[in-house]
Amino acid sequence: MRTFLDCFPCIMNQALRTGRIATNDEQKIKQLLDEIGASFRNLPMENTPVESGAIIYNKIREITGVEDPYKKIKQESIRDALGLYPRLKDLVNNADNKLLMAIRIAIAGNIIDFGVDKKFDLVEDVMKITKQDFAIYDFISFEKQLRKAENILYIGDNAGESVFDKILIEELGKPVTYVVREIPVINDVTIEDALNSGLGEVAEIISSGTTAPGTILNLCHDSFIERFNQADMVISKGQGNYEGLSEVNRSVFFLLKAKCPIIARDLDVEEDDIVLKGINYREH
Amino acid sequence: MRTFLDCFPCIMNQALRTGRIATNDEQKIKQLLDEIGASFRNLPMENTPVESGAIIYNKIREITGVEDPYKKIKQESIRDALGLYPRLKDLVNNADNKLLMAIRIAIAGNIIDFGVDKKFDLVEDVMKITKQDFAIYDFISFEKQLRKAENILYIGDNAGESVFDKILIEELGKPVTYVVREIPVINDVTIEDALNSGLGEVAEIISSGTTAPGTILNLCHDSFIERFNQADMVISKGQGNYEGLSEVNRSVFFLLKAKCPIIARDLDVEEDDIVLKGINYREH
Repeated sequence: MRTFLDCFPCIMNQALRTGRIATNDEQKIKQLLDEIGASFRNLPMENTPVESGAIIYNKIREITGVEDPYKKIKQESIRDALGLYPRLKDLVNNADNKLLMAIRIAIAGNIIDFGVDKKFDLVEDVMKITKQDFAIYDFISFEKQLRKAENILYIGDNAGESVFDKILIEELGKPVTYVVREIPVINDVTIEDALNSGLGEVAEIISSGTTAPGTILNLCHDSFIERFNQADMVISKGQGNYEGLSEVNRSVFFLLKAKCPIIARDLDVEEDDIVLKGINYREH
Repeated sequence: MRTFLDCFPCIMNQALRTGRIATNDEQKIKQLLDEIGASFRNLPMENTPVESGAIIYNKIREITGVEDPYKKIKQESIRDALGLYPRLKDLVNNADNKLLMAIRIAIAGNIIDFGVDKKFDLVEDVMKITKQDFAIYDFISFEKQLRKAENILYIGDNAGESVFDKILIEELGKPVTYVVREIPVINDVTIEDALNSGLGEVAEIISSGTTAPGTILNLCHDSFIERFNQADMVISKGQGNYEGLSEVNRSVFFLLKAKCPIIARDLDVEEDDIVLKGINYREH
């Protein structure tokens, strides 16, 4: 997905929000906004928004000197999600269709996103999403692919959401490789976050190699690209991964909540809709 | 009032909204965002936000080649407001306190503001504001000053709102000079707009000389500054004029609706509150 004009004010907002989390020094934050503003010239519309994200969060690290501004927030998100885990497991175990409920829960976890300017109430919003209608619902195809697959590549998105991913992985019943970011960017899940979420118990964890808040193949390690191409089934969580992977040539199933008007428009859904969208899959 | 960090994403949003009104050429709008972004370095926090506004709207004119992007919108606002005029006059004539109702109506007209990212419904919102409680209510002092004043300087804000100003000017019962911007900036009222609003029938119309979307004295004509200093009473409409005049040394009565969180905070009120605030006035 390319960058739209609306992304630029949003980038500036993200820089301000993250700058405030990283430091109380107003002059440093002003310098950050100045440099982000000056860098717009070098962010062409052909970039995916997450490529721009990589550049921006790099600047934030550089100017504030803080490597991982969201560290504490990520720890809290994981703690809160782990607290909810038993209740979510009950929901799955009592559901008519366990796989579908686990998918709903994995999508619900996608609200834990500090890259968008939306407040959320973890328990209330998650419970709402477990009952929400899908705007795109490729569940039948998802189930078919899953049945045939001997291995699954599952690309994670945010820390905390990772606990919700564990619940879906437990229902997939196939060997899963869980993919994380190379370095901390926004509140995206890293190896450390994945381990803290308990994902080491249910999946192999690898880094895609990207420093962007999403998966753009040409910014990933070759070893990851190979695994991406060879996996029997790819599950991609969240907006950032969708932005990078929406036009790839292989089959991918995207699980996300549309939290940004631009991504909602790209998916032809409304903001706040939930989506299970498959691309390039074979029906048989 | 100085510029706050939150103003920078907002400036970027304004540039995008205005760029889209001025042109359909996405590349030109991108260039506009790039140049606005690059100019942040030259916008110190000590500036009032409207000083930055002057620089930005200048860039918009320069890049798009459109002198007055809001021309059509301003004409429509004036037409709609004139359509409402008889109904507003009835409200005043049937009110227990005609002056107070005319003040409420003048403040209600302040919703017609395309510099903020808020949609409005002219009739519905105006009627609501005629009944809304004031967050700051210096009406008694306003009335006292008015009784003593032999001349009034009334600083207008937006086109369309200008028709609402006419209703208040008709109730003031004193000679009024109505102040407009020197050139078109956002949807702010110019001499042409003031004349189209019927203000020529009730006031002398002068330009402050400013090209900013607000009144910053050091950007105004000397002849205006002299009139500003010598006027018996100054009435200032809207946020942009408040930003420029909130710290001047003479008495001013500000009439506005707080539409931006930063201005609301500066005034110690909530967003969407209505305000009649006097500064530096003598009680006797």
